[in-house]
Amino acid sequence: MIFKLDAQSGPARAGTITTDHSIIPTPVFMPVGTRGAVKALTHDELRSFGAQLILSNTYHLYLRPGHELIERLGGLHRYINWDRSILTDSGGYQVFSLKALNSIDDRGVSFQSHIDGSRHRFTPENVVDIQMAMGADFIMPLDVCSPYPTSERKSREDMKRTILWADESFQRFRQQGEPERRQALFAIVQGSIYEDQRLSCLESLLKLDPPGLSIGGLSVGEPIEDRRRILETLLPMMPPDKPRYLMGVGTPEDILEAVELGIDMFDCVMPTRNARNGTLFTRFGKMTVKAARYAEDPNPVDPECPCPACRGYSRAYIRHLLSVGEITGLRLASLHNIYFYLNMMSQIREAIEANTFDRFKAHFMADLVSGVEEL
Amino acid sequence: MIFKLDAQSGPARAGTITTDHSIIPTPVFMPVGTRGAVKALTHDELRSFGAQLILSNTYHLYLRPGHELIERLGGLHRYINWDRSILTDSGGYQVFSLKALNSIDDRGVSFQSHIDGSRHRFTPENVVDIQMAMGADFIMPLDVCSPYPTSERKSREDMKRTILWADESFQRFRQQGEPERRQALFAIVQGSIYEDQRLSCLESLLKLDPPGLSIGGLSVGEPIEDRRRILETLLPMMPPDKPRYLMGVGTPEDILEAVELGIDMFDCVMPTRNARNGTLFTRFGKMTVKAARYAEDPNPVDPECPCPACRGYSRAYIRHLLSVGEITGLRLASLHNIYFYLNMMSQIREAIEANTFDRFKAHFMADLVSGVEEL
Repeated sequence: MIFKLDAQSGPARAGTITTDHSIIPTPVFMPVGTRGAVKALTHDELRSFGAQLILSNTYHLYLRPGHELIERLGGLHRYINWDRSILTDSGGYQVFSLKALNSIDDRGVSFQSHIDGSRHRFTPENVVDIQMAMGADFIMPLDVCSPYPTSERKSREDMKRTILWADESFQRFRQQGEPERRQALFAIVQGSIYEDQRLSCLESLLKLDPPGLSIGGLSVGEPIEDRRRILETLLPMMPPDKPRYLMGVGTPEDILEAVELGIDMFDCVMPTRNARNGTLFTRFGKMTVKAARYAEDPNPVDPECPCPACRGYSRAYIRHLLSVGEITGLRLASLHNIYFYLNMMSQIREAIEANTFDRFKAHFMADLVSGVEEL
Repeated sequence: MIFKLDAQSGPARAGTITTDHSIIPTPVFMPVGTRGAVKALTHDELRSFGAQLILSNTYHLYLRPGHELIERLGGLHRYINWDRSILTDSGGYQVFSLKALNSIDDRGVSFQSHIDGSRHRFTPENVVDIQMAMGADFIMPLDVCSPYPTSERKSREDMKRTILWADESFQRFRQQGEPERRQALFAIVQGSIYEDQRLSCLESLLKLDPPGLSIGGLSVGEPIEDRRRILETLLPMMPPDKPRYLMGVGTPEDILEAVELGIDMFDCVMPTRNARNGTLFTRFGKMTVKAARYAEDPNPVDPECPCPACRGYSRAYIRHLLSVGEITGLRLASLHNIYFYLNMMSQIREAIEANTFDRFKAHFMADLVSGVEEL
């Protein structure tokens, strides 16, 4: 993986990440393909939108179909037929958030499958092994994601364990030698909303010389001011030559704020999950397309949007399909939302290249609060 | 609607139906878009497969979103954004088969919505009105579809009521004058498995000079020999210049048998419904792709199939997606099955044009029973 910084607009960065599979302009948003598919979409559609990088979840793929099966079938790219880049997370977040956790100790986490209750264990070592077997371009070490709120004492414990596990992950990864497909193992900064812990965590992780840095444990329910404060503390201390990935973020507003502070990579289930609930993202804010007022609305969701849903289908029809539970409705809504996110990232990048990010952000934010009546 | 007979191969017919919306080569299979969408597919995909005609269900669209709303939004074609031809059924079959029926008398059927239990009534007149409001190219009169088995006496009663309602339907339709969009009202032959009733029903209906003839009440569980006997009795008595539509049929084998006897039009939920259950149609029979033996199978469903699913995705991946319940899996399976059906119809038509239908059918049937191990 090679990261090149192309332009800056204040702290906001435009860069290029080159992997064995694709060239990724940053800031980048990764559509989430939890179980090897971005829900309701095909890879052809993602390609047609210019997506260069998607995320898949180690926890889910480890349980079904299993990393060994994926390896036998030639790795994750070939298995899911996605020839561009993939990032896999460490599985830790799912173990904690899906209430699957049984016990945690310095050597790893024991958990039960949310599917069949079977017992499993993730360790820093086997999580690296699993991700090396699957062969994603970007992989993550097992970490402890402190929920919000977490006491200073507990957060420090989680953070220290995260550092310990990062050490073991990098050791394991480097012992294995360079795999056939080159992979970039990032390090994940934890420390909840405590600046000193975040900085101390970062300092320890930088000793491992990771190719990229992830920021975990934000976007877990903390006040937006706390998130901003942590990012403002952390980002200036990060070496400029490493891409920075803010895990699990977020709304369009969240992304704009984080880009402004210098984040390069994002992922979130929001565009696809909201789509399936009938909430569509537009320049002028969110449209609850299932609302009765759209029942006879012949206009596309956004008349200026060139996505396949807006090019062919009315709000009335999409509303009908979602109301009666047609899969085609979930597809059209998901297409629109993913297009919106990816298009927003392109616009962000252009603004950074033109050194006009501040103005772009101000306009974009002003539009977002205008309300969809403007459409 | 204009129907032109292009070629025959024995009783098997190749024709062309021209509507205001498209030119339809026959024999034709209509993908079923019950509620205005063929499940899991978009109209772009159907267009790319060359589909010229889809079916939608009057019962479902009448309940949601309602024919009046569809009319206000410019008719069904515009509402669902499908610029080619549409056939709507009469709603009668759903009223009977969804156990919605409350009472039936010579004036119509009273039923309760399967969604909210609300009470409704279909009459020959309002079913014509509803379908005229929606504006499909082909519309059907309200009929009584006798289940199998039905006694001779009961079947005669259903058949007579079907004729009575057909009379009233054509009267209503012709009273309304030619609508903006020209529509073809077919007549539906009933009479269960009783030849004399079928012939007598046909004779009465022909007095109405319908532009096309539907055969209802078959493919409802009767032995295949009974179906064949009825078709062999009925088809030679049908004027060759009217297209013949065998409602609700069927499997690939059923379609080949019926084409052989002279049927021109088909519809069935089988390709889409089976797809969602993980059963894929192939040249060599049905593949239960969810079976464990496909878990590590890197081949496409059919290596020679040019459909978007087979061009990009393995049996292993499709199996995985269907096993974990990913919408993308339902899409890939549905794409394959609809492609299979539409492609089969093209091959059938070519064979009729080449006057080699018998040989084609023998080969096709022989392959179908070979088993998917041949793939």
